[in-house]
Amino acid sequence: MSKTSKKKEPVILVTNDDGINAPGIRALVEAVKGLGKVVVVAPDKPQSGMGHAITIGQLLRLQKSNAFEGVEAYSCSGTPVDCVKIAVDKILHRKPDICVSGINHGANHSINVIYSGTMSAALEASIESIPSIGFSLLDLSIDADFSAAGKYASIIVQKLLSSKTLDKHLCLNVNIPAVEEKLIKGIKICRQAYAKYEEEFDERKDPHGKKYYWLTGEFVNFDKGKDTDVWALKNNYVSVVPVQFDLTNYKLKQQLETKWKF
Amino acid sequence: MSKTSKKKEPVILVTNDDGINAPGIRALVEAVKGLGKVVVVAPDKPQSGMGHAITIGQLLRLQKSNAFEGVEAYSCSGTPVDCVKIAVDKILHRKPDICVSGINHGANHSINVIYSGTMSAALEASIESIPSIGFSLLDLSIDADFSAAGKYASIIVQKLLSSKTLDKHLCLNVNIPAVEEKLIKGIKICRQAYAKYEEEFDERKDPHGKKYYWLTGEFVNFDKGKDTDVWALKNNYVSVVPVQFDLTNYKLKQQLETKWKF
Repeated sequence: MSKTSKKKEPVILVTNDDGINAPGIRALVEAVKGLGKVVVVAPDKPQSGMGHAITIGQLLRLQKSNAFEGVEAYSCSGTPVDCVKIAVDKILHRKPDICVSGINHGANHSINVIYSGTMSAALEASIESIPSIGFSLLDLSIDADFSAAGKYASIIVQKLLSSKTLDKHLCLNVNIPAVEEKLIKGIKICRQAYAKYEEEFDERKDPHGKKYYWLTGEFVNFDKGKDTDVWALKNNYVSVVPVQFDLTNYKLKQQLETKWKF
Repeated sequence: MSKTSKKKEPVILVTNDDGINAPGIRALVEAVKGLGKVVVVAPDKPQSGMGHAITIGQLLRLQKSNAFEGVEAYSCSGTPVDCVKIAVDKILHRKPDICVSGINHGANHSINVIYSGTMSAALEASIESIPSIGFSLLDLSIDADFSAAGKYASIIVQKLLSSKTLDKHLCLNVNIPAVEEKLIKGIKICRQAYAKYEEEFDERKDPHGKKYYWLTGEFVNFDKGKDTDVWALKNNYVSVVPVQFDLTNYKLKQQLETKWKF
């Protein structure tokens, strides 16, 4: 390529799990708008905790949206993973150069990566050979301050777009602490902490006397490592965990090959 | 323990994603009934493709079920992952010794592990330190022949229950080829193949002229390895892939630590 030839603008697919009207996706669109051609395909309603669900038994709808000024956008009746799939096949008619998901209202560190619709959308993109990043802010509230999160999202997307030797399956789980920007100490590459929820279902009775349950639980960190996302966030770092869709437990595979004779 | 003391019967939690009335779960209950005290907690309707979804914004119901003669059973209005969580907290009031999920009507090899409600239920158990196995038969039909699958399920569960040094996070993804039992060559410990769906949405118009979409796709195997689950199944082996919930991509983590300076 000659020095004067204009580099083609990268196509950036934006999605989330809180729905197309959530403030978090607005912040993400603002953060990446200047970095390429942005197209939004996001759920038409909140889809938190949907994990890697896909819609098999029901039809899907797509609707053009004016939620973002000057940005092509669509809402989809399906899950976050459906959004990525349908965006590639029916809207972009090609793979985008990168897919970003979020900014999620609430943490997706440690085991949350597995329940999170935000991260499942990013992981789906990486399965489809589209480098991807999921962003989450450690603040669940609807009026959370996304300014620092937006800045870090922009920095990390730029880093990814300028990387020459990019793994096409690269997928990053980025969490941003809910503190003022000046208190954030920097960005840390981490591993997923072994931390989980200790479930406790809240048992109630409906007006007809029939029992029903709400899923609740306490978050417990069993992992004392200083190389984890939970540690980084507690110490005011932005945590970046590279994630993968090969779930094979290779260590256990080796053990079983030796020990289990059938 | 003295030689004469009776060993306590293990508690076996059974779940699935095809719903409590599917023939596959009936076959699994039959396969493990003689191996311990069996308790079934399964979705009240089909939940295929639900991945690791959990129910956050809606209440959950539990209903006692007579679907299995002489076996304590409950249907739950939630996802397969919800079933495991609520079984531990509200029905068993303890962790079972093992959780088995399936037998799924249809394959859950390769990337399917990530979309599968059957495997997500098993993975949830392993997150909760309950050794678990998901079973799937490569036959989608409602009247599939589960006899060989049931026999292999029984063999593998017995193996697991008799293992002395059991990893409490052990989780196995077991797929059984849809062939006559005498044609099955044995059991193979494998890794997850890199194989995925090439999506194609089927676009239609409703009676009011509005577009809608069905998710469809073609399964493509990009992985030529002979150590994969896809290879094993194609060659009439039962495939066993040990899976894990730590999604950290450690290789990429190391690369980013060296290359990405923030």
